[in-house]
Amino acid sequence: MGIVVQKFGGSSVADAEKLLKVCKHIIKEYNEGNNVAVVVSAQGKTTDRLISEEKEITKKPNKREHDVLVSTGEQITIAKLAMTLQELGYKAISLAGWQIPIITTSEFGNAKIKYVNTKTILDLFEEKYIVIIAGFQGIDEKLNITTFGRGGSDTTAVAVAAALKADKCEIFTDVDGVFSSDPRIVEDVKKLEKVSYDEMLELSSMGAKVLHNRCVEIGKKYNLPIIVKSTFEEQSDGTVVTDSYMEDLTISGVTKDDHIARISVMGLENKIGRTYNVFKLLADNDINVDVIVQSFGENVNKNLSFSIKTSDLEDAVKILNDHINEIGAREIRYFDNLSKISIIGVGIANKTGVAADMFEALYENNINMHMISTSEIKISVLVDREDSNKAVNAIHKKFYDKLNK
Amino acid sequence: MGIVVQKFGGSSVADAEKLLKVCKHIIKEYNEGNNVAVVVSAQGKTTDRLISEEKEITKKPNKREHDVLVSTGEQITIAKLAMTLQELGYKAISLAGWQIPIITTSEFGNAKIKYVNTKTILDLFEEKYIVIIAGFQGIDEKLNITTFGRGGSDTTAVAVAAALKADKCEIFTDVDGVFSSDPRIVEDVKKLEKVSYDEMLELSSMGAKVLHNRCVEIGKKYNLPIIVKSTFEEQSDGTVVTDSYMEDLTISGVTKDDHIARISVMGLENKIGRTYNVFKLLADNDINVDVIVQSFGENVNKNLSFSIKTSDLEDAVKILNDHINEIGAREIRYFDNLSKISIIGVGIANKTGVAADMFEALYENNINMHMISTSEIKISVLVDREDSNKAVNAIHKKFYDKLNK
Repeated sequence: MGIVVQKFGGSSVADAEKLLKVCKHIIKEYNEGNNVAVVVSAQGKTTDRLISEEKEITKKPNKREHDVLVSTGEQITIAKLAMTLQELGYKAISLAGWQIPIITTSEFGNAKIKYVNTKTILDLFEEKYIVIIAGFQGIDEKLNITTFGRGGSDTTAVAVAAALKADKCEIFTDVDGVFSSDPRIVEDVKKLEKVSYDEMLELSSMGAKVLHNRCVEIGKKYNLPIIVKSTFEEQSDGTVVTDSYMEDLTISGVTKDDHIARISVMGLENKIGRTYNVFKLLADNDINVDVIVQSFGENVNKNLSFSIKTSDLEDAVKILNDHINEIGAREIRYFDNLSKISIIGVGIANKTGVAADMFEALYENNINMHMISTSEIKISVLVDREDSNKAVNAIHKKFYDKLNK
Repeated sequence: MGIVVQKFGGSSVADAEKLLKVCKHIIKEYNEGNNVAVVVSAQGKTTDRLISEEKEITKKPNKREHDVLVSTGEQITIAKLAMTLQELGYKAISLAGWQIPIITTSEFGNAKIKYVNTKTILDLFEEKYIVIIAGFQGIDEKLNITTFGRGGSDTTAVAVAAALKADKCEIFTDVDGVFSSDPRIVEDVKKLEKVSYDEMLELSSMGAKVLHNRCVEIGKKYNLPIIVKSTFEEQSDGTVVTDSYMEDLTISGVTKDDHIARISVMGLENKIGRTYNVFKLLADNDINVDVIVQSFGENVNKNLSFSIKTSDLEDAVKILNDHINEIGAREIRYFDNLSKISIIGVGIANKTGVAADMFEALYENNINMHMISTSEIKISVLVDREDSNKAVNAIHKKFYDKLNK
């Protein structure tokens, strides 16, 4: 007998019928003698509806009141799920964030969890209740309602599981786990049995939106196994996100991001501090720079190129042009036609030839690389956007063919 | 400079446009230098929608979870109203029941207010905030969410006003105050300038659903003037519900209730305790008996007639028939064709001839009275349902004609 935390997202709890399906997973664990806490999101499009109603009132909602508004979505779900379990004859009880409480920072809309009080939940376990918890929300120390940003129910689930010292945390979703690439792009994707926390972090930030990044970080910190599995496939083992990565798999996944733009700052004076000034200016304006390439010319001027998100392009170009004299550049050029292709795997750092294999796959398919960046567990290249799907397929094939040899 | 509490019901806050209209009333008081607390209900049909979704899950919802579910409606409104005021440039902040907190009993769905903590509200007044409060909800001592039953936002408003020692409590609604009768029945109804708490209690329970009864009781207990006025008519003085009734107005209102049935227990043994047994049996089954007539016959048997709500008729007849031997009766007869017409006014007890005038109005119009009951401030008669509108008009005319002479 142990403690199990399960989390069901918005599409898994969208209506009365789906709530019944969710109950099967809960009851299975409960009937095996486990204490079960269940974290849920707002139903289906509830949050979107509330936000569109909010837009009728104001374009810049007060962040505190925004959190008061959207946190009602999860409160509706907890009551309904508790009622559904009761209708099936089980003892269930709902808890909103403030009732537990989950204490957070005061950053409305993006609050960080400081502390999960486990007493209420453990007392209810003693009384054999299935405890239904509102995801995505907490309170700060002044009793203001806070939320964690989109996808924050994953974070609630893992944080609650860590605080309860749960045996496992199951994140139920539409897909049957974490895959080696996007099935819409690559035909023979492979479901990963296991993936490490670090790989999962890179996969999340690369746009494979299976898990919220912050929840993976909490899982890593407390060494809590997170299981990603399907709500609607009964015989799903899913993917375990854990530290104990043992497989000899060179790469876990190939991802792409099609929203990458490049900016080139031309004719920058070749003086100390010039590069720093450019990036300081962008950072002060909340623009994240990703891959950077600096050409060291032979003359007094150099060109500095870097990639940013497409959504930041307009702002970045305006800011740089506004300060062009200050930063000492001649011209700002930009291109919004790039994709970033990344391979992710704990094997990369310890294994030679991974980068070479990746570049070979691109070369064989006549795909030009514009920029390259590497980390311990990731290699990214920027390619022309029109080549991005071809690139993902070529790299995926290269590595999985090798693996199967 | 004082403290003003305002309450706006569901139809007054139904959409973004109406929220703007509501703000006018709030801003008017605030700009006059008052501290303003505003209590709101759920928007328009929100509560009905939540209840219909609940019915998809269960026919007998757990009462605790029902309160968790429906209390989200008011939370949505407080956030939206606070945002609307902020959009207009005012400092506003929302508080759910648990944030104040409003401490209640644990009767889910029908909780009674034990205590309103004023510290949070008064601190926010210090900072010049307009405080927006979720009506209809509180928490019990174990931090469970409780609600007060339909119309409970009125109760919240008056309780908050009493706790804050407010100068006045304004209840905004669709109508411009309390009227001397139902305008759909009587043509020249008169808007009452003032009405006493006791009269208002009788008017409420008689089906003139302007104010929730419990809120009138709180107003009476703390001697707090409650002003009922229209949200949408700008130049509305409304009606003041207060203790200081000074007008020489014999009756305040004429009301009717068309859902009255009569039961006759025939051939009841003429022994001590027989009547008591009948009413004990009904009370044990939560059936309220209203007007009672007992015929003292000359022989050993008597007939006992009483009126009850139509909605209780089926249950009452079944219970009486099931115990007919036990109560010692011969037969249970019933009729579901009555209306109760009442006149209400503090003047009734101290003024002779009021009942005579009422009966005369009915006699002149050839309306038969079946039963009569009187209290300090009320005289009720039961008439055939088909005569009810005619009866209300006749009585209303009789008293207001007299008044205008």
